[in-house]
Amino acid sequence: MAGRPTTAPGTPRPGMHTLTAGRGLLFGGDYNPEQWPEHVWDEDVELMKAAGVNLVTVGVFSWGRIEPEPGARDFTWLDRVLDLLGSAGIAVDLATPTASPPPWMGHRWPRTLPVDESGHRLWYGARNQFCPSSPVYRERALAIVTDLADRYAGHPALALWHVGNEYGQICHCDDSAAAFRAWLRERYGDLDTLNEAWGTTFWSQHYSDWDEIVTPRRAPYIVNPTQRLDFARFSSDALLAHYRAERDILRERTPDTPVTTNFMGLFKPVDYWSWAPEEDIVSNDWYPDPADPLSPARTALTHDLIRSLGGGRPWLLMEQSPSAVNWRPHNLPKPAGQLRLESLQAVARGADGLCYFQWRASAFGSERFHAAMLPHAGPDTRIHAEVRAHGAELRRLDPVVGTPVPAKVAMLHDWPSWWALEERGRPSDRLDLPDQLLRFYRPLWERGVTVDLARPSADLTGYALVVVPNLYLIDDRDAAALTEYVRGGGVLVVGPFSGVTDPRGHVRTGRFPAPLREVLGASGEEWMPAPEDRPVRCRWADGTGFTARTWTELVRAEGAGTVATFTEGDLADRPAVLRHETGEGVAWYVATIPEPEGLGELTVRALADAGVTGVLPELPPGVEAVRRGPVLFLLNHGAGTVEVPLPQPSEDLLTGSPVHDRVTLAPRAVVALSPLP
Amino acid sequence: MAGRPTTAPGTPRPGMHTLTAGRGLLFGGDYNPEQWPEHVWDEDVELMKAAGVNLVTVGVFSWGRIEPEPGARDFTWLDRVLDLLGSAGIAVDLATPTASPPPWMGHRWPRTLPVDESGHRLWYGARNQFCPSSPVYRERALAIVTDLADRYAGHPALALWHVGNEYGQICHCDDSAAAFRAWLRERYGDLDTLNEAWGTTFWSQHYSDWDEIVTPRRAPYIVNPTQRLDFARFSSDALLAHYRAERDILRERTPDTPVTTNFMGLFKPVDYWSWAPEEDIVSNDWYPDPADPLSPARTALTHDLIRSLGGGRPWLLMEQSPSAVNWRPHNLPKPAGQLRLESLQAVARGADGLCYFQWRASAFGSERFHAAMLPHAGPDTRIHAEVRAHGAELRRLDPVVGTPVPAKVAMLHDWPSWWALEERGRPSDRLDLPDQLLRFYRPLWERGVTVDLARPSADLTGYALVVVPNLYLIDDRDAAALTEYVRGGGVLVVGPFSGVTDPRGHVRTGRFPAPLREVLGASGEEWMPAPEDRPVRCRWADGTGFTARTWTELVRAEGAGTVATFTEGDLADRPAVLRHETGEGVAWYVATIPEPEGLGELTVRALADAGVTGVLPELPPGVEAVRRGPVLFLLNHGAGTVEVPLPQPSEDLLTGSPVHDRVTLAPRAVVALSPLP
Amino acid sequence: MAGRPTTAPGTPRPGMHTLTAGRGLLFGGDYNPEQWPEHVWDEDVELMKAAGVNLVTVGVFSWGRIEPEPGARDFTWLDRVLDLLGSAGIAVDLATPTASPPPWMGHRWPRTLPVDESGHRLWYGARNQFCPSSPVYRERALAIVTDLADRYAGHPALALWHVGNEYGQICHCDDSAAAFRAWLRERYGDLDTLNEAWGTTFWSQHYSDWDEIVTPRRAPYIVNPTQRLDFARFSSDALLAHYRAERDILRERTPDTPVTTNFMGLFKPVDYWSWAPEEDIVSNDWYPDPADPLSPARTALTHDLIRSLGGGRPWLLMEQSPSAVNWRPHNLPKPAGQLRLESLQAVARGADGLCYFQWRASAFGSERFHAAMLPHAGPDTRIHAEVRAHGAELRRLDPVVGTPVPAKVAMLHDWPSWWALEERGRPSDRLDLPDQLLRFYRPLWERGVTVDLARPSADLTGYALVVVPNLYLIDDRDAAALTEYVRGGGVLVVGPFSGVTDPRGHVRTGRFPAPLREVLGASGEEWMPAPEDRPVRCRWADGTGFTARTWTELVRAEGAGTVATFTEGDLADRPAVLRHETGEGVAWYVATIPEPEGLGELTVRALADAGVTGVLPELPPGVEAVRRGPVLFLLNHGAGTVEVPLPQPSEDLLTGSPVHDRVTLAPRAVVALSPLP
Repeated sequence: MAGRPTTAPGTPRPGMHTLTAGRGLLFGGDYNPEQWPEHVWDEDVELMKAAGVNLVTVGVFSWGRIEPEPGARDFTWLDRVLDLLGSAGIAVDLATPTASPPPWMGHRWPRTLPVDESGHRLWYGARNQFCPSSPVYRERALAIVTDLADRYAGHPALALWHVGNEYGQICHCDDSAAAFRAWLRERYGDLDTLNEAWGTTFWSQHYSDWDEIVTPRRAPYIVNPTQRLDFARFSSDALLAHYRAERDILRERTPDTPVTTNFMGLFKPVDYWSWAPEEDIVSNDWYPDPADPLSPARTALTHDLIRSLGGGRPWLLMEQSPSAVNWRPHNLPKPAGQLRLESLQAVARGADGLCYFQWRASAFGSERFHAAMLPHAGPDTRIHAEVRAHGAELRRLDPVVGTPVPAKVAMLHDWPSWWALEERGRPSDRLDLPDQLLRFYRPLWERGVTVDLARPSADLTGYALVVVPNLYLIDDRDAAALTEYVRGGGVLVVGPFSGVTDPRGHVRTGRFPAPLREVLGASGEEWMPAPEDRPVRCRWADGTGFTARTWTELVRAEGAGTVATFTEGDLADRPAVLRHETGEGVAWYVATIPEPEGLGELTVRALADAGVTGVLPELPPGVEAVRRGPVLFLLNHGAGTVEVPLPQPSEDLLTGSPVHDRVTLAPRAVVALSPLP
Repeated sequence: MAGRPTTAPGTPRPGMHTLTAGRGLLFGGDYNPEQWPEHVWDEDVELMKAAGVNLVTVGVFSWGRIEPEPGARDFTWLDRVLDLLGSAGIAVDLATPTASPPPWMGHRWPRTLPVDESGHRLWYGARNQFCPSSPVYRERALAIVTDLADRYAGHPALALWHVGNEYGQICHCDDSAAAFRAWLRERYGDLDTLNEAWGTTFWSQHYSDWDEIVTPRRAPYIVNPTQRLDFARFSSDALLAHYRAERDILRERTPDTPVTTNFMGLFKPVDYWSWAPEEDIVSNDWYPDPADPLSPARTALTHDLIRSLGGGRPWLLMEQSPSAVNWRPHNLPKPAGQLRLESLQAVARGADGLCYFQWRASAFGSERFHAAMLPHAGPDTRIHAEVRAHGAELRRLDPVVGTPVPAKVAMLHDWPSWWALEERGRPSDRLDLPDQLLRFYRPLWERGVTVDLARPSADLTGYALVVVPNLYLIDDRDAAALTEYVRGGGVLVVGPFSGVTDPRGHVRTGRFPAPLREVLGASGEEWMPAPEDRPVRCRWADGTGFTARTWTELVRAEGAGTVATFTEGDLADRPAVLRHETGEGVAWYVATIPEPEGLGELTVRALADAGVTGVLPELPPGVEAVRRGPVLFLLNHGAGTVEVPLPQPSEDLLTGSPVHDRVTLAPRAVVALSPLP
Repeated sequence: MAGRPTTAPGTPRPGMHTLTAGRGLLFGGDYNPEQWPEHVWDEDVELMKAAGVNLVTVGVFSWGRIEPEPGARDFTWLDRVLDLLGSAGIAVDLATPTASPPPWMGHRWPRTLPVDESGHRLWYGARNQFCPSSPVYRERALAIVTDLADRYAGHPALALWHVGNEYGQICHCDDSAAAFRAWLRERYGDLDTLNEAWGTTFWSQHYSDWDEIVTPRRAPYIVNPTQRLDFARFSSDALLAHYRAERDILRERTPDTPVTTNFMGLFKPVDYWSWAPEEDIVSNDWYPDPADPLSPARTALTHDLIRSLGGGRPWLLMEQSPSAVNWRPHNLPKPAGQLRLESLQAVARGADGLCYFQWRASAFGSERFHAAMLPHAGPDTRIHAEVRAHGAELRRLDPVVGTPVPAKVAMLHDWPSWWALEERGRPSDRLDLPDQLLRFYRPLWERGVTVDLARPSADLTGYALVVVPNLYLIDDRDAAALTEYVRGGGVLVVGPFSGVTDPRGHVRTGRFPAPLREVLGASGEEWMPAPEDRPVRCRWADGTGFTARTWTELVRAEGAGTVATFTEGDLADRPAVLRHETGEGVAWYVATIPEPEGLGELTVRALADAGVTGVLPELPPGVEAVRRGPVLFLLNHGAGTVEVPLPQPSEDLLTGSPVHDRVTLAPRAVVALSPLP
């Protein structure tokens, strides 16, 4: 299993189990009582109880309320909020309010305001306006966190700490430049090493003094890619350092209260593999786009990532929307039943808690049109009715609490590789990482094959199949481990433009992918983006064909068998897909970007090599099937009613009804099948 | 009638009648003699006389010529210009030159230069580079205005004052921030009230000191919408304050000379309802796009707005183009006859003056390719020939001078509501205000129904039908007045997403549109933007259908009748259009954005409720019909020749010919029919 | 012939012949050994020799390596590089390293960093980050150039100086503003003259003090076009002044070594007509886009320009790519044979040297994915194989070295006219200069008619046909010379929107094109951009038709014959194309933008007027035919195999085979035919 968090030996940490113990599945949302007069709070708590809410997040944007001017403290309102919730039996996920400093901070200390790469200072008036490297910000943030922790340590409502919010700030100010230099000194030790790593002989970029180094600011042309890669690493680490500082204060004062910060799925700026081990619970904010037909698969991939970040432990869906969001240009609502379908998809993929942004719709501010569990129009609304019904039925799923989601397939993903891949100046900017992940994920998901995400350095021995949609950057050790994995009997699928660079982003010279050449039994010499106005035609050995797009490579077999070839132009009869039996295992290489049909066929073959099957032998299109603990979840994302044959008699936990040979699923229907004895 | 200007009691103000007295319809344009040697001036005046020009605007961009260095004054050239025009009998609309300070101002006082929301200082080299809140700018502008007024008070050519030009400057500099704070203190009195109005509990935006407040500058994410709404109000008011300061100087020195400043139609940055009462004459710059098939209706709407801003009084078309402009990416010329058609459209809708930008085409500068009454190629050109012919025929229309354009229909429009509506973070950015206005205006215009525009607080008792395409923001009093209007026998049509917020931009909680719920006999709970890739199908009670787009709402009847329903998805059989008979009147609610056919049918029904008919019973497509005073104007905007049946024998004033049963209109033809006795 | 360089009388300059003497055609590329350990250098030199490389460019981005901190010098590595190359018999094109200062310069002297028009400072981290007017930059650049020249004067490997790289920097900082003022003082003498030239009576832009003048920085609206035109002139001149300063140092120390700087074809910021005479060899960087179907013609046009810049002398293709570049969003590779085809196209059009960017593919930096002669994958690659084969076959073409490419047709091109044309605020931004040049060039190129480019002031007497696709700005003398040219028997074709302004960018009043009206026997009064959604239909006198796009003009014949008319709308039956026999010659005017078919027909007629024929009577589509010295080159850019009939028996120099009646050309095939005796 991938990325197990490191904890100090002998220190058992609290976690999701701390929260679900005695509560079962968690259900709730962000609660911002500071936006409402106190008489509304009582109504809120009554409605929460009626809706089955047992966890709310409080205080995310409360810095200005707690510290209305520098050094002041007003906790009295928060005392009342926690007391009220506590006495109603609703657990509190208490946030440190440090995501958004009040205006007084930017006004008195303008250097706390972030600066973008063009030199524009970003002002208060919205949110998140801090420089992660600002000493003033960090000092004042830690001070309020300390007081908050001191105040609420031991409060009976306090169940979880929520540090900051959706970390992702990037800053190019002089303080950030100084912090970047300190980080670089730590990484490289001396300037010669940095100059070599950054390849500063290119374009006369030699640094003769540490003080010359700045963040990758706006420049006349393409900026040094290693400078940018290191800045991405630094930016993630600078935020992590601040998160850890807050967390340490909380842990010291409340060692039994778990700590989390909310992730945002495949969010590029922050390397969650390095963050997750620093949390007690991995939590995520996720907003599927109702206008995107790929949302179901994209969401499944995201949930699998989040579960994997926590090493397979149950996770918390910290934010989702009951219906439309407000931040897209055109925000579609969710049709009836979609709220339930999406929430149960998260349970099926390992979530033990389901929270929404937010409880009560704001009447003002930039999110006044974000849907909420309790709309402006009040409880007598279709959204609130769906929320309430969903809150009630969740109690039927308590049998899955704490159970794992087993996977025999791992898909590798690495943030630094992503950062390095998507720099300017590459063969094509049409090859992007999230798209590659989803392309390789979809055929597995469509076949009911559950996938773990893993970082390249993970222990892969438990997996029968490892899929690498793209690992542009890979270090020698990880490449060697992949080779060993295959030799030991694993099946590996590697997508194009992988193994290109070392961790500095330097292209590995020689035929590509240099460090995987041996295991793949193949190598290439030229990346050849394809004209976008016509498909690339390919042919399997049996003469059937498939099309690909965007990308081709000039490769040759070196031990591998060519299982598909290109058919036209200079690449005619050259390998498009290769398969290499080596040691006890099999390695596949895909030298193009097949359309779904071709990638589906390839996936079937690789699954056969690995001996992996889906949780059901056949699935109608649009039906997601995943097994969690003893329960088989079937979710119909399609537009039509379908029938799914079942291997054994079961009970649908959601209805309590028995189900025998087959189950009928209307659009957006879900069943949670527990085998009948 | 809407928005009558307030004038000090007992002070009769000069106005359009002052200008037309003895001159009839005004005809002319901007005249920039400072761009030409003096020998050209004589040719200009001769050609003006030959073309029937009787009014020219002088001095709009003459600051640098009058005050070539700080404190200097050179009026001698302007003396000669005014003397020359005066002796030719051409009236002068003399501009204060304060729209564009000379470079010396920005050079010596950089703080007079405006700063955009990202912090970029905007330089001289173009025009309009001033901060409206700059003390230095304001002091120097008023000084030159004072000297100008002193110089030309009593000059026989002086007929009208033209203050500044196309006001619309926005600035985010520190001086502007200070002025914004002063404006906010005036509005809110204390910080607690401001914090509540701005909803600063949201995202930790609490202000603890007035000095913390800045303009809504570039920020990491969506800026506080009330802060932005108030900044829009402030920006309009700051410009208005400066306009008033200039105007007061002029009025004091020349009490009998009317004062105007040129508007720009539906121009978002400035609230013309608050400006118009401060003018003696409402004037407008309008440039229909020859490439836009909706130009004729858009222009009619604009003219109706301008007329209504002046409370129905005759207005002045200050700028139009004889043919192509130069500021669009691709500037189509006007085909033969279009110049005349557009000019007469303005007369038909209440204009008593028709001016062009500009008299003589510039040879240099950024507008050198803007068409002019006198092209680069000289008088022997098709454009100048059309200008001359048009100037001559205008004399035939003097009977309409001073006459009103009667309307039984009012359409409400409000600038703060517009500002608030189009903030970021709403359900859809595809619902925009000008588009909504035009959608509801078109079916009325196509049927020969004249419309006044009115602000929400206007007295509506004179109107049989009031149309509210969108009033996102509405205050309680105006909502109550609309309710009273209907109860008293009026007919009201309300479009979607209306009545959403109070004047602070806070969403009114409860079912929407909260303050209009009773009069509409209906309420809603959820705004539901529709997928853009397929139309929304709706059905009238009789089974016929229409399509809508972009927007739907989940509403229910509460007394109203459902006259059209949605037909698909979760909204199937739910109301799309409702009609509520209440008191003596009828209120309609439209919970979607019907395509023209559906909105046409709805308009027919609402007109029937109101007992309003067009000026002719039937009109061919593309023909505009409007009655001004005793004259019926028919204008053919279509591409084909059409026949229009007439109710009575008339004389076409433009030709002097009698017209009996029907009139034939070639493309771009116009008739001005005066009933024969 | 156009634009012969001026050289001091009596000073014979070295040139291309200096390089080719004893070497024949040059073959090589950029070589950046500083990116590699020294052991790689030996391999490089061995592979270069094997590939026939005889010239490499060294040191373009070596400033940071030579001067790692201010004032230091490390030439030892460069000594070894030059010694190594020299002993291998490979000539060195040694670059002054001043294109990219090291980070220490921007860090210590931030004023050396350029500032864009919005005021953003552009940082180091990429390349080219210098202000051309910075005294510090210029002083330090000249110091290192001096030391470099002193060091390598007389080194046997030194064959050519390469000054800077791809000059094109633009800066708006205060130092640039001061330099701009100095340039303007030089140009205009006094402020009154400047105010008149800039038309500062427009929009109140009068300057009262030189210090008020700044570069055309970001402003609220369209900036003064003459200010921008002069800034473009200044920016080109400021760079040229610096180039000359470097060159003078080099010439003083190495009078027998030619000097070049690499151009970039139709590169807008720099007026190459003023630069080329300051070089001993004209060299160019050119990267045809494999995705652009017009690349072959666009490239031929570019090569003809480069040859013409050098007055017809052989030129050097300094940079091309062996396959894909890395700086487009999606970079297609070159198919097999394309490298050879493109390289030979340059030889056919006058190049005596063929170099690539770069020798060995970089492993790091922003160009790591730019193709190279020696790919990452090493010598056993298809690209390197093609490079090596091409290097070998080039030796067969040594007979063309030094020979001219004769042309009877000149096409006029002028940078200031280009700058002035493409300012904002014109009739249409869809009429752009490179597109116009290519439109008129294509039908000539397709017919095997070789073209010289010429500046408007060139001596045109040697040409039978002069084509002016667009000369928006033209001075009186050049217009008079064109008139004389026609009267003396020349044939002239003038495209639309020509002759519009004087050199200040002021529109010439009167009918257009004023200074060419007489020679064209026609004049116009109105530019009329055409609706983009439908073609403009035109008709020849014989009734056949053609279509045009985007642009029409209202013109009339004044002596010319109307050979084609418009057919619709206000322009129906008005002239679209006119032909004027005057004196001994003929002048054509094209008052629209014909699609290729129409322009082809027009070209055929103008060629007939001029008595000019292609090098072969008939050419299959896609086949380029051009004669250089005694050799006829035929190049097949098409996708199919074609046959070309030949007028006489020849030998294909590339194969040594005789060719008789006809030659068969596969796709991308080339023959170089030398007549058999």
